[in-house]
Amino acid sequence: MDHRQILTDFIRRAWSEGDLAAVDDHVAERYAIHHDPGDPWDGRTLTREEFKQRLVASRAVAPDQVFDLVEVVAEPPRVAVAWTWRGTHLGDLPGFPASGRPLRMSGLTLYSCEGDRLSGHWQVADRLSIYRQLATG
Amino acid sequence: MDHRQILTDFIRRAWSEGDLAAVDDHVAERYAIHHDPGDPWDGRTLTREEFKQRLVASRAVAPDQVFDLVEVVAEPPRVAVAWTWRGTHLGDLPGFPASGRPLRMSGLTLYSCEGDRLSGHWQVADRLSIYRQLATG
Repeated sequence: MDHRQILTDFIRRAWSEGDLAAVDDHVAERYAIHHDPGDPWDGRTLTREEFKQRLVASRAVAPDQVFDLVEVVAEPPRVAVAWTWRGTHLGDLPGFPASGRPLRMSGLTLYSCEGDRLSGHWQVADRLSIYRQLATG
Repeated sequence: MDHRQILTDFIRRAWSEGDLAAVDDHVAERYAIHHDPGDPWDGRTLTREEFKQRLVASRAVAPDQVFDLVEVVAEPPRVAVAWTWRGTHLGDLPGFPASGRPLRMSGLTLYSCEGDRLSGHWQVADRLSIYRQLATG
């Protein structure tokens, strides 16, 4: 697999389908969250087990979540991706208990790789739009 | 100049220094803002003159603003960049009149090029952090 395929496979299996084996297949032994404002793990470096815990906890907010990749830009060992996200709000968020509402968000992530494994990211998501969706009608 | 240099030169001259000639040098005749939630021009396609108007209006919020590029990923005709932004809040924002406060924000932008000119972008900025900086002490 080239870096584009690795990233596409990882996001589909891990983040859209919740397949923990995708972490074993594609994540390095140490994964650095360089920048991810609003993510509870922002600034931390995770083992694969800790990454799986983050994946399970993150997906609990919207267990039916799907990431769609809008664009992938690969210049190994870096791969950037623009994405949209959608899911149903079935888990609690700080200040916003589960509402059952459909939610949408967009963001971009710049991944670093070590060999053919993902070793970290720098991400910004449009979290303001989530607050607006939850705070209104 | 390669695409990395074009982007670096454009962001420094246009966005950090307010040099309108950088628009003539680096922006295509039509520039499409594919996705940029919170930007007043989100979804529009601009001529160079309209791009200059957007640049002038955007910079008025923090005329001393500086963009620092954290990482650039180039796979022509696409270039992605992770950035941080800082500036002094000297112009009004909706709901937040000029406060004189120092502000910081981060974001990522994925640019499209036509030949050696920038023809559009897909961007997400951490606007939630700006609201938090302005809404608190």
